[in-house]
Amino acid sequence: MRLGDDEARARLAAHDHGVLCTVHAQRGVDAVPVVYAVDDGYVGVPVDRVKPKASSRLQRERNLEADPRATLLVEHWDRDDWSQLWWVRAELRFEGDAAPALAARLADRFEQYRDQPFDRVLLLRIVGVTGGAARA
Amino acid sequence: MRLGDDEARARLAAHDHGVLCTVHAQRGVDAVPVVYAVDDGYVGVPVDRVKPKASSRLQRERNLEADPRATLLVEHWDRDDWSQLWWVRAELRFEGDAAPALAARLADRFEQYRDQPFDRVLLLRIVGVTGGAARA
Repeated sequence: MRLGDDEARARLAAHDHGVLCTVHAQRGVDAVPVVYAVDDGYVGVPVDRVKPKASSRLQRERNLEADPRATLLVEHWDRDDWSQLWWVRAELRFEGDAAPALAARLADRFEQYRDQPFDRVLLLRIVGVTGGAARA
Repeated sequence: MRLGDDEARARLAAHDHGVLCTVHAQRGVDAVPVVYAVDDGYVGVPVDRVKPKASSRLQRERNLEADPRATLLVEHWDRDDWSQLWWVRAELRFEGDAAPALAARLADRFEQYRDQPFDRVLLLRIVGVTGGAARA
């Protein structure tokens, strides 16, 4: 079943981990796992030094500066019971660095950032949310 | 740390669930959760009626027919222990429908397909694999 707009937005806001996809000139698309927070129509994605990165750690930012369109895919996966599956996809636009409210929400949500705070937070405006679930 | 090519390919082949990203003319990028199998340099992604889809369930195929570039992101997420995190990203090219070997591997791996077999399997050639891990 398709999730309604309110339900899809509620699940996006309640969760904090997904895959961020951006446009890459050669590869077509790029994808990285991220943590995030939602506040007032915006998604904030921290740039940190804690989680593993490839050498080109700022590729996602170069992509967003060249093309501000991004997609965040959040899902619940259950290998054995597919009746539990759901996913939400947010269409986003990069707007620069995030306001303090999103940074505070991230720091509050992940204790890992207490010892090694992130450098900054990418600000992405939510322009649409869709989703699906195996059941209501 | 960055994963070596062999290690990244081994982790891709050992796993079977990730996020498939394709190029979408308006959104820039599209992303859907998928299961997959790897065989001899190719990734197979089933088109099924079991997992939840939005109404436009074949959008990924329309995207791939217009632009064959795709990216598959596979990751291990652990909310509490970030020393366990790793991810692998495969750069792919869509080549059409997959051979029976990949279909057999998927049917063997997921018992959910025994009762409701998938319709067909999308064939994606692996052109590159990168990855990162918090530790070796």
